[in-house]
Amino acid sequence: MSEPAKHKEAPKAPANPNLVERTLRNLSSAWRDAANSAARTIGLPEPLLPPTDRRALKRFMRDCLEARGGEVSARLQAAELGQVYLEADEEGRRRFLEVLAEDFGVDEDRVAKAVVAFSAAKDAETRLEAEQKLRRALVPDRRRLLTKFNALNQGVKFLVDLRADLLPLTRSAPSLKGLDADLKDLLEHWFDFGFLDLRPITWNSPASLLEKLIAYEAVHEIRSWDDLRNRLDSDRRCYALFHPRMPDEPLAFVEVALVVGIAGSVQALLDEDAPLADPAQADTAIFYSISNTQKGLTGISFGEYLIKGAVQRLSAEHPKLKTFATLSPVPGFLRWVEDVEDARLAAIMSEEEQGGLRALAGVDRPAEALRLILAKADWANDETTRQALKGPVIRLAAHYFEQRRGDGQPIDPVARFHLRNGARLERINWMGDRSAKGLKQSAGVMVNYRYDPDSIEANHEAYVKDGEIVVSADVAKQQRAARPPEGSLFSLRAGRRQKAEKG
Amino acid sequence: MSEPAKHKEAPKAPANPNLVERTLRNLSSAWRDAANSAARTIGLPEPLLPPTDRRALKRFMRDCLEARGGEVSARLQAAELGQVYLEADEEGRRRFLEVLAEDFGVDEDRVAKAVVAFSAAKDAETRLEAEQKLRRALVPDRRRLLTKFNALNQGVKFLVDLRADLLPLTRSAPSLKGLDADLKDLLEHWFDFGFLDLRPITWNSPASLLEKLIAYEAVHEIRSWDDLRNRLDSDRRCYALFHPRMPDEPLAFVEVALVVGIAGSVQALLDEDAPLADPAQADTAIFYSISNTQKGLTGISFGEYLIKGAVQRLSAEHPKLKTFATLSPVPGFLRWVEDVEDARLAAIMSEEEQGGLRALAGVDRPAEALRLILAKADWANDETTRQALKGPVIRLAAHYFEQRRGDGQPIDPVARFHLRNGARLERINWMGDRSAKGLKQSAGVMVNYRYDPDSIEANHEAYVKDGEIVVSADVAKQQRAARPPEGSLFSLRAGRRQKAEKG
Amino acid sequence: MSEPAKHKEAPKAPANPNLVERTLRNLSSAWRDAANSAARTIGLPEPLLPPTDRRALKRFMRDCLEARGGEVSARLQAAELGQVYLEADEEGRRRFLEVLAEDFGVDEDRVAKAVVAFSAAKDAETRLEAEQKLRRALVPDRRRLLTKFNALNQGVKFLVDLRADLLPLTRSAPSLKGLDADLKDLLEHWFDFGFLDLRPITWNSPASLLEKLIAYEAVHEIRSWDDLRNRLDSDRRCYALFHPRMPDEPLAFVEVALVVGIAGSVQALLDEDAPLADPAQADTAIFYSISNTQKGLTGISFGEYLIKGAVQRLSAEHPKLKTFATLSPVPGFLRWVEDVEDARLAAIMSEEEQGGLRALAGVDRPAEALRLILAKADWANDETTRQALKGPVIRLAAHYFEQRRGDGQPIDPVARFHLRNGARLERINWMGDRSAKGLKQSAGVMVNYRYDPDSIEANHEAYVKDGEIVVSADVAKQQRAARPPEGSLFSLRAGRRQKAEKG
Amino acid sequence: MSEPAKHKEAPKAPANPNLVERTLRNLSSAWRDAANSAARTIGLPEPLLPPTDRRALKRFMRDCLEARGGEVSARLQAAELGQVYLEADEEGRRRFLEVLAEDFGVDEDRVAKAVVAFSAAKDAETRLEAEQKLRRALVPDRRRLLTKFNALNQGVKFLVDLRADLLPLTRSAPSLKGLDADLKDLLEHWFDFGFLDLRPITWNSPASLLEKLIAYEAVHEIRSWDDLRNRLDSDRRCYALFHPRMPDEPLAFVEVALVVGIAGSVQALLDEDAPLADPAQADTAIFYSISNTQKGLTGISFGEYLIKGAVQRLSAEHPKLKTFATLSPVPGFLRWVEDVEDARLAAIMSEEEQGGLRALAGVDRPAEALRLILAKADWANDETTRQALKGPVIRLAAHYFEQRRGDGQPIDPVARFHLRNGARLERINWMGDRSAKGLKQSAGVMVNYRYDPDSIEANHEAYVKDGEIVVSADVAKQQRAARPPEGSLFSLRAGRRQKAEKG
Repeated sequence: MSEPAKHKEAPKAPANPNLVERTLRNLSSAWRDAANSAARTIGLPEPLLPPTDRRALKRFMRDCLEARGGEVSARLQAAELGQVYLEADEEGRRRFLEVLAEDFGVDEDRVAKAVVAFSAAKDAETRLEAEQKLRRALVPDRRRLLTKFNALNQGVKFLVDLRADLLPLTRSAPSLKGLDADLKDLLEHWFDFGFLDLRPITWNSPASLLEKLIAYEAVHEIRSWDDLRNRLDSDRRCYALFHPRMPDEPLAFVEVALVVGIAGSVQALLDEDAPLADPAQADTAIFYSISNTQKGLTGISFGEYLIKGAVQRLSAEHPKLKTFATLSPVPGFLRWVEDVEDARLAAIMSEEEQGGLRALAGVDRPAEALRLILAKADWANDETTRQALKGPVIRLAAHYFEQRRGDGQPIDPVARFHLRNGARLERINWMGDRSAKGLKQSAGVMVNYRYDPDSIEANHEAYVKDGEIVVSADVAKQQRAARPPEGSLFSLRAGRRQKAEKG
Repeated sequence: MSEPAKHKEAPKAPANPNLVERTLRNLSSAWRDAANSAARTIGLPEPLLPPTDRRALKRFMRDCLEARGGEVSARLQAAELGQVYLEADEEGRRRFLEVLAEDFGVDEDRVAKAVVAFSAAKDAETRLEAEQKLRRALVPDRRRLLTKFNALNQGVKFLVDLRADLLPLTRSAPSLKGLDADLKDLLEHWFDFGFLDLRPITWNSPASLLEKLIAYEAVHEIRSWDDLRNRLDSDRRCYALFHPRMPDEPLAFVEVALVVGIAGSVQALLDEDAPLADPAQADTAIFYSISNTQKGLTGISFGEYLIKGAVQRLSAEHPKLKTFATLSPVPGFLRWVEDVEDARLAAIMSEEEQGGLRALAGVDRPAEALRLILAKADWANDETTRQALKGPVIRLAAHYFEQRRGDGQPIDPVARFHLRNGARLERINWMGDRSAKGLKQSAGVMVNYRYDPDSIEANHEAYVKDGEIVVSADVAKQQRAARPPEGSLFSLRAGRRQKAEKG
Repeated sequence: MSEPAKHKEAPKAPANPNLVERTLRNLSSAWRDAANSAARTIGLPEPLLPPTDRRALKRFMRDCLEARGGEVSARLQAAELGQVYLEADEEGRRRFLEVLAEDFGVDEDRVAKAVVAFSAAKDAETRLEAEQKLRRALVPDRRRLLTKFNALNQGVKFLVDLRADLLPLTRSAPSLKGLDADLKDLLEHWFDFGFLDLRPITWNSPASLLEKLIAYEAVHEIRSWDDLRNRLDSDRRCYALFHPRMPDEPLAFVEVALVVGIAGSVQALLDEDAPLADPAQADTAIFYSISNTQKGLTGISFGEYLIKGAVQRLSAEHPKLKTFATLSPVPGFLRWVEDVEDARLAAIMSEEEQGGLRALAGVDRPAEALRLILAKADWANDETTRQALKGPVIRLAAHYFEQRRGDGQPIDPVARFHLRNGARLERINWMGDRSAKGLKQSAGVMVNYRYDPDSIEANHEAYVKDGEIVVSADVAKQQRAARPPEGSLFSLRAGRRQKAEKG
Repeated sequence: MSEPAKHKEAPKAPANPNLVERTLRNLSSAWRDAANSAARTIGLPEPLLPPTDRRALKRFMRDCLEARGGEVSARLQAAELGQVYLEADEEGRRRFLEVLAEDFGVDEDRVAKAVVAFSAAKDAETRLEAEQKLRRALVPDRRRLLTKFNALNQGVKFLVDLRADLLPLTRSAPSLKGLDADLKDLLEHWFDFGFLDLRPITWNSPASLLEKLIAYEAVHEIRSWDDLRNRLDSDRRCYALFHPRMPDEPLAFVEVALVVGIAGSVQALLDEDAPLADPAQADTAIFYSISNTQKGLTGISFGEYLIKGAVQRLSAEHPKLKTFATLSPVPGFLRWVEDVEDARLAAIMSEEEQGGLRALAGVDRPAEALRLILAKADWANDETTRQALKGPVIRLAAHYFEQRRGDGQPIDPVARFHLRNGARLERINWMGDRSAKGLKQSAGVMVNYRYDPDSIEANHEAYVKDGEIVVSADVAKQQRAARPPEGSLFSLRAGRRQKAEKG
């Protein structure tokens, strides 16, 4: 299982291009209806013509902000404003965002005055008042304007998608960064996990929801409805997070297999022809895929809550489950191998292993041999090659998980996510993912991160406070075996923890 | 119908004292279960002993804030912290709130530094960053701590009730005001009406919900389940607002009667023996009671959304409805009459009227006569007295609605609420409320505020921007009749609007 | 708990007379709508004028039976026919029923022919065909006609209520008996318990459903909504049976208290001020009231399924529950005491007991004393009297349960019901029901019937096949003590079972 | 749209063979659980060993029938009996059915006696009693035994599937016919349409339900989930009938397209790339596929109720819809053409048409030419051929609908179904179904039957009472054109109705 999938890559484009279109179609028509109904019943001001330039757009937004006709009407004017955005082309949308960013920021004069008053305040009560005034002065108008969309049917989804449009633009347009910061902060409050619902997803769920899983799955592609049904069969579980105002849109979801013993191969789990396991006999829950779905929520984290919430549900419903672990990719492994010095690579192999690889590759230097073999697309189909690679690669992987970035955290992004959550690196699996992608990024290696209730807190504290990377005894042994005789870069503690040299 | 009832008086103590107890019982037990389950499954740190002094309490809160064991665990530690509060006595709760207020405010140094940096920032990008840093520095720890309760079952209700405890204390303890401001701001965001659900309440609703209507009704007491059923019969409607995290707690509700023509007497509406009207024939919806229910949400307004939301629903379901109006009390009327000069009172009556009142009261001066008669508990039972009072009292009431406070707004609080929403004062009803309360506060007078889709926006704008009090032609005529011959205090505009002298 | 309450007494008139009216109102209007909608969309024949005499009524029914316009139209014609019935007065309804009974019976000629053919049939195949023909010939037209009501909204309820009207008429009008037999048979098939839903009822159930419990409770009157809430509190359970086509009408319901040890006093259970028990600690479920609700389903039994279904639910949800028992009235006890010979009464008392009663009553003969004391309304308030009565009355009650009717079954109707279900008579409770009704019918005595999973089958078989009345060891001892020295009327078996002398 | 598809052909084998397996798996496990739970809680007798021979099987059934341990236990014994059946092989199942058929029929002696008593009865009351006794005697034990399955989870589905097993066996085993008659009669009562629910099916329905549509669709195969989604898009509707005890199993379903004007081509409707229509603009609902799903309900009709129920729903929700019509196949058309004399075929064509066909086929006789061309698989791809065939084939089809069976009803089965329902033959569509199946059975011809509210009743009466085949003016004209000059076989009435020469 990966860290909640990166948004740069995922969610991949929906398998069915109509999904997005259909969503948009529904949104537009819902808002048109809302506006019409409102106009009839609660006195909405007459719809303005769609503004064609910045000036008109600005006035339109200002009107909405000032709530002509009362606050309820203001929310309905937001529906019209939203339609302006939805129906605009790329250029129009960009203009819309720029007006919002540039003309609806904080009132600098007001802030300046509040700063002065704050600095001058002496006694507690005056200070408190000044503090609050300053706080309020720092709330930009655009934030209040964005809030007005939440009352609309699918208004929250609108803002999430608006941020998905906004994000790529911020790179080239610094003026949009402030807007993004406000929007992200707003969404972060709204999507605080206290307001989210964790719901199971099953084969009895609506097809309209299930097709979204197919579209959004970011780790192990769902190839067909049969594939999906297999992932929702009686020995599987799937949980997703939902926001009450986006009840049909999963925010993130995790796929779980109920098995006996920790699973090491994702292909075995995804095999549609494999016999059904009896969930009543399972002692282990394997979290083999976790995906975020909304580009517009980039930077807002759901993974910890999703995993731990799923663990709680599973524990309550299946008291026999004792082990909770992921089956996760190792996305940066082979990229890192590229950078390892040849001597270091060679040092990790026994003489026999070196000989084997040299023979297979037909070259002289063991590191070169290793690289050559791994570069072949089909090496995994050859039993001899697999045997020759297994030892060195697993030791390399063990070593890889000891590597740290400048800030002292592990270089593997998935490791960072799970270790911070309090999991430990439990096992390194040879031939865990034989797909082309799996072979390419990690020579087929997958790992398990284990969420052990008895040590989650201690692991989390050790990781956050002391920078320790907690691993199982097995992995610790593999790490020791991977270390060159002359000494280690890291001090070892009793086969369990490794203290990081921070930053 | 009143402005959403003031919290000072309402919600009155639940008819059944067990309602609150039962709610509390459920909450405690739910949290105990959550904590136990969490300890078993996701590694909650061992529960600490309940802190007995400020120091321990502070450490306890600090731990929760720093999220030992990860963010999910932190939320569950909040459950324990909440139990500390729930099980504390009055003194203990006060201590809890003080620690929160005094030890978890903003970091003044950090704010000071941010202010300096902000003042120094020159270019746009630096300024944006400094602005965000300042904003973040101004978020006190207690606010982040309070947020952690939202993930708990009924955690939002906990915070609402905590604020209900806090509010009366802020008067004597200024240090608590900052806490209240933070909490109110938090709740204001969470209870933004975009996140609320408007749901009809019927006789098919759960009894556990309906008993809350009985407990919370703040305007016209619900005397029994039979009374309640009458208010939910087929010619009535009731709508309430709910928050997704408090699904069993109505936040505010409105009671509506579907009738032919505008209703002027609340006793007629509440008469359980009155024949059922055919809702299909109704052309008018009378909003005859609107109540807020949560003391802890004081200052957060639901009334406008509730009324306009109900109007939208009613319009959609009953296209024949053409008129939407309230039947509202006039709470400050007789109090104001007390302050009116005798000469002014007399001037409002014809000679004949003066004679009638003098005869009835057996005193010489008409103003004194009026006051003496209104002071009797049973005057309304005598037809002659009623006839004698009717003219003068209605004219007085018309005049009353022209009176303004220092800020230019009407002195009647209910009028302020509905006028701001865009309603107009439609009709003054003699003998609208013959209950003891109704006679005492307004000589039985009730009024209708009318929500007319075609003029809501204009009315709202006129009120907010120009301070106009919009009244119907009838009321305008009564107001003219109440004006002394020598000239009016207010300029009249075509029998429709009166421009306020601001300030 | 009683046998499902007799319909002669129950359901008592609804506390709120409007309940029935409201139901009727809904029904009529629903059918009018259905007919109108049908006329518009699927070609219903034009509504006939309401038939004013037998002839017209007969033709109307015949048309409906012959399904003009197809079967769907026929069902909608039934709505009109139903309205004719609903809007008729008492005389009109009687006529309606008579036409149905007399003009839509079996075709006697057709039956006669089928009988002849059946008697003549020789080989298997011919015989099978003749059998089927005979069976079909025996289905009267009225039965097919009645069936057509089931497609209507509330059509099943209509037939149930029609039978409630019909039942009292059958006594004086033999011609209606055949109609009742057909209708009962039809309802018996429809209300076969395989088609019923057992649903819990809680304080969260709709008020419109709960008010029906108040109206229908037949054993221990529900005095108020507070009383009802107490019966649905967290240490109580309530289950009801529903038919899918009458989802808002409970057919029968049982009230259960979760307690520690077998409960002996119904007043203790109904005490609203008693502290709440912790259901998690309970080891015993006491079924203290079971009521049937539909007069029109008289003779169709729901009790066994309701009790056993509730036992299954309770077992699944509360694994700690070990004992399932009723707390039941003894309706015929004092009536039977009236008939017991004085000598027999005296023989049941010790000399000391006789002396005590004589002194209290101030008469000489002990049997007369007993009768005099029990006839007083307030004897139960006097401690001395209670002490004097306790021994003799309990022994009498024990003896009472040994008495049998001509068919060998116990004379107590409640005992017959529970023993047939496989329960045993577990305990006789002194002062079990101190209400006026309880004192009058059974001197306050109540009993527990215990449903013990391990012996239900054996008890049932013993009762049904051998006529044994299974009692606990305690009751057996009390029965022995009640027996005159010279010998018993019944042979005893090991303190557990008594063989009945049949017929 | 076809008559509810014949069971001989449909439901075709599920696309996914696992659907049936999964259903069976669920059923077995549910019953095992029920039996276990019952054994624990309500005293189920110990499970017997699975009976291995007729004798043991008979005893097992007899025990269940006699309800050892009470009626509730009897129902649970049925679960065990059901498991015996489910786990048996083909031979075992046949034996099971034979025992049921042969050993649990009516008690012939009892029937004989009842017949005698019935024949002897003179007065009304005795007669009524005798009638009832005879009726009861004619209820075979197997019928009572089968009823006991209804209380089981999925017990009704079990009986439906049991009948699906039974039906093919009845052909060779006459002794099973009585059992089938009983079972059918039982199911007919249970599945009376008054007890069924008509529910819309949408893309928001559970995937587990939607996959059943794919499996069961009997008219126009659903090729994929994309095809299905297209059939459930916003311009489509789908309705299905459900039994309350089989809530996840549609009994029959109809697919509807909302269009402008009557649709004539099924390929156009099923085209996934066709643009979405706006349902708000539609004036016509086309019922283009109706399928029955349960083999075990063969002979029980759902079609009329399904279509008319759907018409009612559609009318209520889309008041703009004015026309309701099917798009139906003509299954027997080309089979009938085979039997038509060559001279008759030739007579239907103009000389020019004859010439065209002769040229295309390269033969001399026009009838032979027609037959040769229609026998080619790809004729529909050639524009010239299509033009040459169009006139003769449509006239032939018009003539075909005038043909009757011995009983006077039309030879086309789909026509019989819709005409009986009160529809009329509205239009004959050239190239209505270009699929291989459509070309083969009807040369691509499809027809519309129209359900016109204003004439449904008259049409139904005309068809049922007078044997008239109601057609539109257009079709009547085509029929006249198809008639040989020397006179018609049928008398025509005003271009609208044709009176059948009965049997």
